[in-house]
Amino acid sequence: MSDQTRFLLNETDLPKAWYNINADMPVPPAPVLNPQTLEPITPDFLSVLFPMPLIMQEISTDRYIDIPEEVREIYKLYRPTPLIRARRLEKFLDTPAHIYYKYEGASPAGSHKPNTAIPQAYYNKISGTKALTTETGAGQWGSALALACNFFDIGLEVYMVKVSYDNKPYRRIMMETYGAQVFASPSDRTAYGRKVLAETPDNPGSLGIAISEAVEVAATSGGAKKYSLGSVLNHVLLHQTVVGEEALKQMDLAGEYPDVVFGCVGGGSNFGGLAYPFLRRNLREGQRTRLVAVEPTATPSLTKGVYAFDYGDTAKMAPVAKMYTLGHDFIPAPIHAGGLRYHGMAPSLSALYDAGYLEAVAVPQLATFEAAIQFARTEGIIPAPESSHAIRAAIDEALDAKVKGEKRVILFNLSGHGNFDMTAYQAYLSGKLEDFEYPEEAIKASMANLPKVAVEA
Amino acid sequence: MSDQTRFLLNETDLPKAWYNINADMPVPPAPVLNPQTLEPITPDFLSVLFPMPLIMQEISTDRYIDIPEEVREIYKLYRPTPLIRARRLEKFLDTPAHIYYKYEGASPAGSHKPNTAIPQAYYNKISGTKALTTETGAGQWGSALALACNFFDIGLEVYMVKVSYDNKPYRRIMMETYGAQVFASPSDRTAYGRKVLAETPDNPGSLGIAISEAVEVAATSGGAKKYSLGSVLNHVLLHQTVVGEEALKQMDLAGEYPDVVFGCVGGGSNFGGLAYPFLRRNLREGQRTRLVAVEPTATPSLTKGVYAFDYGDTAKMAPVAKMYTLGHDFIPAPIHAGGLRYHGMAPSLSALYDAGYLEAVAVPQLATFEAAIQFARTEGIIPAPESSHAIRAAIDEALDAKVKGEKRVILFNLSGHGNFDMTAYQAYLSGKLEDFEYPEEAIKASMANLPKVAVEA
Repeated sequence: MSDQTRFLLNETDLPKAWYNINADMPVPPAPVLNPQTLEPITPDFLSVLFPMPLIMQEISTDRYIDIPEEVREIYKLYRPTPLIRARRLEKFLDTPAHIYYKYEGASPAGSHKPNTAIPQAYYNKISGTKALTTETGAGQWGSALALACNFFDIGLEVYMVKVSYDNKPYRRIMMETYGAQVFASPSDRTAYGRKVLAETPDNPGSLGIAISEAVEVAATSGGAKKYSLGSVLNHVLLHQTVVGEEALKQMDLAGEYPDVVFGCVGGGSNFGGLAYPFLRRNLREGQRTRLVAVEPTATPSLTKGVYAFDYGDTAKMAPVAKMYTLGHDFIPAPIHAGGLRYHGMAPSLSALYDAGYLEAVAVPQLATFEAAIQFARTEGIIPAPESSHAIRAAIDEALDAKVKGEKRVILFNLSGHGNFDMTAYQAYLSGKLEDFEYPEEAIKASMANLPKVAVEA
Repeated sequence: MSDQTRFLLNETDLPKAWYNINADMPVPPAPVLNPQTLEPITPDFLSVLFPMPLIMQEISTDRYIDIPEEVREIYKLYRPTPLIRARRLEKFLDTPAHIYYKYEGASPAGSHKPNTAIPQAYYNKISGTKALTTETGAGQWGSALALACNFFDIGLEVYMVKVSYDNKPYRRIMMETYGAQVFASPSDRTAYGRKVLAETPDNPGSLGIAISEAVEVAATSGGAKKYSLGSVLNHVLLHQTVVGEEALKQMDLAGEYPDVVFGCVGGGSNFGGLAYPFLRRNLREGQRTRLVAVEPTATPSLTKGVYAFDYGDTAKMAPVAKMYTLGHDFIPAPIHAGGLRYHGMAPSLSALYDAGYLEAVAVPQLATFEAAIQFARTEGIIPAPESSHAIRAAIDEALDAKVKGEKRVILFNLSGHGNFDMTAYQAYLSGKLEDFEYPEEAIKASMANLPKVAVEA
């Protein structure tokens, strides 16, 4: 066991391939359905929105997919990211557990999102795409894709939820600094946006509306523009496995192997990215690491949702997939972890959770900020509210190890820093944050609106 | 020459000692004077404000001063920081020059400031200080000292310039997240603050007033509280040499040696920290690296100021030192590089510049933001407005090398990221930023107010 604090890899250790969980899925994948027909989707339908290389990755069952050299060159601006042992947090908790975290906030955009934004921009570039469209809530995904599109010299239109556009300008300015065009959604640039504005001129927007606008712009561009999504899809989780592949090497440097791995989940990409390479070891090499997804109690899709076919967006324009869901018209409570406010969950992650290969736990908002402050004051880094869910679970695990007097090796994904989330910290420090009750009745109503195929499946 | 992009050191390479330029000063130091008597200052006077270990470092002529193990342990949270070759910027500029940057924005507080905040908090802790006081403008220094005081479990009162306290809340919340108390200055907590408020109730505050308040609180605390300064003083620049010592090792890894080194200067600490170890090579080993301080045209203390004795603060409570100055009552233009809005310059740096061992150049605000955008779009990191001055100079050097067809090796200090400065980027992108004329008459008036000793020296 090493006595070091930070475990760094040189760029020669940067992974040369992503790991594709589809090669080792112990359960068969459910089909993805066309949202209009509810029949299995065709590559033609997908090709309106995505370039062919990404569609091929979406359905590939190859175990490893080479990372293009052009993508690795840009990864090298910030990768490999550090693996850090949280020695000061361990001491503060007085725990026999060893706590490690993979720090994805070291990227220029401040989160793990560039790991997939960069290859998505690359594959679009080589496929002739002139511009991408996407949606963003608080702006983590939008700023990562703005960074990536800038590198490959393709345009980007970001539809940003209006309430965030107005109240959280810093991420918007970051996107503009990278050269992207950012529009408050609902906007007058799309038929769907105009319809919403006509009905509700003061509509504050939602991720569902913004997705619909971004999809509409791409779908009606005659092929010049494609659409890009920052989580949920197979190819997104694939790209994020660069995190777990590095972590495997770094745990070797540390001379330890994790008993348990945590990551926060909204759509599932940062957790899947870290956990899937460890799951490969579980499935193929007999390791027995517990892999735990951590979600907010306000959006408990894994712990309180159902495993069913559902639409990916509110307007029913995105494909239908079998996933853990709270219902596509469920409106999440306004927690500060904006990146976790999604009704569904990545289909691969849902299937693995359903089959018992992954665990899940839900934590409330106040407890995550308590953990975030403990982390900031011991380790220095102020974490993103999303990532703080993983910190909360890691601390709980370390405290449990303390009660039981067990040495336990814990690894979590610190998926981003909180530099753009300081108003959330202010709300917490001034006692203005609250927990949200799980809206049992609202979710029941949403469940009644699942597409019919759900009961047939 | 290496083909890598990032040059990382392991924590075993973390320097064990700081380099003290006083051991190699080719010109004798001028005395520091008591602001009341204008006689050479005594350790007794200083000991009201600073703990004895820092006073001893201030006057030491030992070439190397060991970094305490307790400080190194905390440095390891983020040090050694990366040295990165700006290959994409080089390509964008189409220059034969090689451009390297040392990335100090990798610290939890986002700048080089923790390099001295951590040892200052440590030496105060072991000297029995219960709490520190300091001033901060936009908040980079305040947040670094808040981080450090939190680690050593001592209190911190930050007097933050009122206009920043009101308009730039993110850094304030960061300080509070680390546990510091932050007060808008002028405040009613000090006699000086109350005097200012009585005369001008709507006073927006200034760094000069905030220094005076922080100094007053420490000086009247009966020894329980000490004062901490984030630049200018010898011991501050000493602590920052950890930057240059690492860079020397990393340039070895890169297989190159810089022809020219740039750093932005306000009080001089990030530039001195990077440049002094290279100056040692110049002085003692016959290297001939050009060492260039980059200042704003709005506060051109080196390029347009005079080398004279002057007060360190507006209220004439801080010691008088011989330095390049624009006059202690000069009010800098409201440029966004708040950390560079200081009338004076570190005495060691001033003496070396006066004797021709260092160079200086001044760059205007718009040109620095143009450089910042080019850097962000090629290298990904959005730089702090302060650091962008060094980027501007590095780009100009690379373009000059291109014109002359010369390979040139350029190194600069990227002293911090711009995550908390996005409003400045918005102002630039929307065409609202302006350059400021050098206020010849205003500076002349300030020059008339230098202490009498100036003409005698």
